Amino acid sequence: MREVAVIGVGMNKWGELWEKSMRDIFVEAALLAMDDAGVKKIEALYVGSMSPGIFAGQEHLESLLTDYLGQCPIPAARVESACASGGLAMRTGWMDVALGLHDIVMVSGVEKMLDVDGGTATYALATAADQEWEGYNGATFPGLYAMMAHAYQHKYKISDDRFRDMLAAVSVKNHANGYLNEKAQFRLKMTMEGVKTSTMVADPLRLMDCSPITDGAAAAILCPVDVAKKKFKHHPIVKVLGTGAATDTIALHSREDMTWLRGTEVAAKEAYKMAGMTPQKIDFAEVHDCFTIAEICVIEALGFFKPGKGCTAALEGKTARDGIIPINPSGGLKSKGHPVGATGIAQIVEVTNQLRGEAGKRQLPKAKIGLTQNMGGSGGTTLVHIFKGEK
Amino acid sequence: MREVAVIGVGMNKWGELWEKSMRDIFVEAALLAMDDAGVKKIEALYVGSMSPGIFAGQEHLESLLTDYLGQCPIPAARVESACASGGLAMRTGWMDVALGLHDIVMVSGVEKMLDVDGGTATYALATAADQEWEGYNGATFPGLYAMMAHAYQHKYKISDDRFRDMLAAVSVKNHANGYLNEKAQFRLKMTMEGVKTSTMVADPLRLMDCSPITDGAAAAILCPVDVAKKKFKHHPIVKVLGTGAATDTIALHSREDMTWLRGTEVAAKEAYKMAGMTPQKIDFAEVHDCFTIAEICVIEALGFFKPGKGCTAALEGKTARDGIIPINPSGGLKSKGHPVGATGIAQIVEVTNQLRGEAGKRQLPKAKIGLTQNMGGSGGTTLVHIFKGEK
Repeated sequence: MREVAVIGVGMNKWGELWEKSMRDIFVEAALLAMDDAGVKKIEALYVGSMSPGIFAGQEHLESLLTDYLGQCPIPAARVESACASGGLAMRTGWMDVALGLHDIVMVSGVEKMLDVDGGTATYALATAADQEWEGYNGATFPGLYAMMAHAYQHKYKISDDRFRDMLAAVSVKNHANGYLNEKAQFRLKMTMEGVKTSTMVADPLRLMDCSPITDGAAAAILCPVDVAKKKFKHHPIVKVLGTGAATDTIALHSREDMTWLRGTEVAAKEAYKMAGMTPQKIDFAEVHDCFTIAEICVIEALGFFKPGKGCTAALEGKTARDGIIPINPSGGLKSKGHPVGATGIAQIVEVTNQLRGEAGKRQLPKAKIGLTQNMGGSGGTTLVHIFKGEK
Repeated sequence: MREVAVIGVGMNKWGELWEKSMRDIFVEAALLAMDDAGVKKIEALYVGSMSPGIFAGQEHLESLLTDYLGQCPIPAARVESACASGGLAMRTGWMDVALGLHDIVMVSGVEKMLDVDGGTATYALATAADQEWEGYNGATFPGLYAMMAHAYQHKYKISDDRFRDMLAAVSVKNHANGYLNEKAQFRLKMTMEGVKTSTMVADPLRLMDCSPITDGAAAAILCPVDVAKKKFKHHPIVKVLGTGAATDTIALHSREDMTWLRGTEVAAKEAYKMAGMTPQKIDFAEVHDCFTIAEICVIEALGFFKPGKGCTAALEGKTARDGIIPINPSGGLKSKGHPVGATGIAQIVEVTNQLRGEAGKRQLPKAKIGLTQNMGGSGGTTLVHIFKGEK
């Protein structure tokens, strides 16, 4: 099994990109990653995208995007794992390079979500839930995560006011980080009051507890570590130390405990084992904060905080940029945006830049080992990756 | 790189399965494959599906299907390559086992196409074409393949009557094979006259030149050859000798020659090279006959027939069960049906049964090396695999 490195990363400015098509924004991000790596040709392409069929009337992205990137006839694959499609593209590309099939491989993600009306977007996203038992009965993702939030509050016997503050603190922290990120969709400095008085979406989740609908793409170039050390020396090398993937029941109602993300726990354990790591050795992480409650459950399942202790982490500053374990220095899904197929790759873009010491205003003082956690649906799939920078 | 074997295969009876849901038909095929292999647990799952979002309002199949197969929390992935999604699942699962990630891996495919009206089905399939340049302007797949057929007829200066016979002979042959296949959707003995007088769809392609819309699933179990030799001796071992994947432009109008499937040529060359094979050493093949013209172009691009010579192959009996290179002994997409995501895996089911000598009434006398070719869109992606039976 060959060791794998990330040698190039790129993402475009995310947002409401009305004037650009899906292929445009993909090619933009892909070329940024290729320029960053210093390569003009790639040997294989993996692209994560959740529902381009519903969002853009376009499946078969591996053919379309390889074509528009001028790279035919290289092998290419689209992979899908709902909102974890980007993380799955990373894992699949890593398999390719680790196996020795190809040396220069692009892993990428794209989603063009704003060319449809809001109802269609909500429907498209709900296809990540159990259509027959959840979607058909009207459950949408804000609703499902609201149920997780209520279950969490109930399990740990937290008062309404206190819980409201705990959720709001996650949003305030991630927006504070995203304010420093020029690629982020919503560079707003949020206050606790601002979050707590935003429009109610699904009790207790308000608008500022929810990640937005976004057009965006991101890409990274992988290659074997020995090739990176010889040929790609213009950036510090970022090694992939571990990868983990796991599933959980697709429907929330099938789980023994709605507050515990078993998929994230299992995927993280696999990644920690492969990397020879423990949660305590991770310096910072990009995690899947599709809703504020999600970040709270995720940082527990990753082992950063004990069950029931994730909820106070943001409130007490433990996950802030100067906290004991900075979470989502990029701004997370909440501020940076959440073009579902691209999110998992954008996490890798941020971790790579941090590990290289090239994160600019967002640079964390201690960034040697970074982790990404990307999640599909209400946690039905999870992908975890661990990276090490060698400055 | 570990050698990989196929140790179990299964598919359900394909057709218009109104009374069953997508998860039902998947689990049915998956359990058949697990029973055939003699395993109760799998360690990872790869599922190919083209457009479950449009066809069934359900993405995130890797979570749904792992859940309903009772296999959580194993890692799982959905892969998509339009009508080549099954072939892509095979290649991705092969990567997993070859790399040494897991020992018992399911590769599978499913598509539930008949729960929507015909217009929606046609739209869903057209998402495999270039939506902005082909789909938006009204091109559907019968239309695109009809253009390829006209280009072929023009290039090789074939008279209308003669060309009509060439196309019809492909359909007659595949239906003669499918008549022997109890899993096939349309077990009709077709005559040349029957094909030639069927309803016109897109000139020159008539109804009986076109593969049908189908509900169906298929699955196969992979494991390392050394494990297969020790633990799974109840069937002859079927080795994966080679895999190849390639892309071509997604739009037909971007190609230098609309009659030449460059993706198939490049993918086949990669697979032949890995297998140490030439086209002449292949005993039989399952290929992507979504339309009669497709089979003609494919057997040329695979190197079985020279350019311009594929068109007479079926007419002269060369690709019949007793011909020099039997093509589509299962009945092909034409007779067996074409649940798009499952087709590539069903090809592997047939090849495995033939190589084991367990194909019953369809058993070919000479079946030691078999090839599968699975194609997305109008050839924008192609997956080729080569297998060897060790009886």
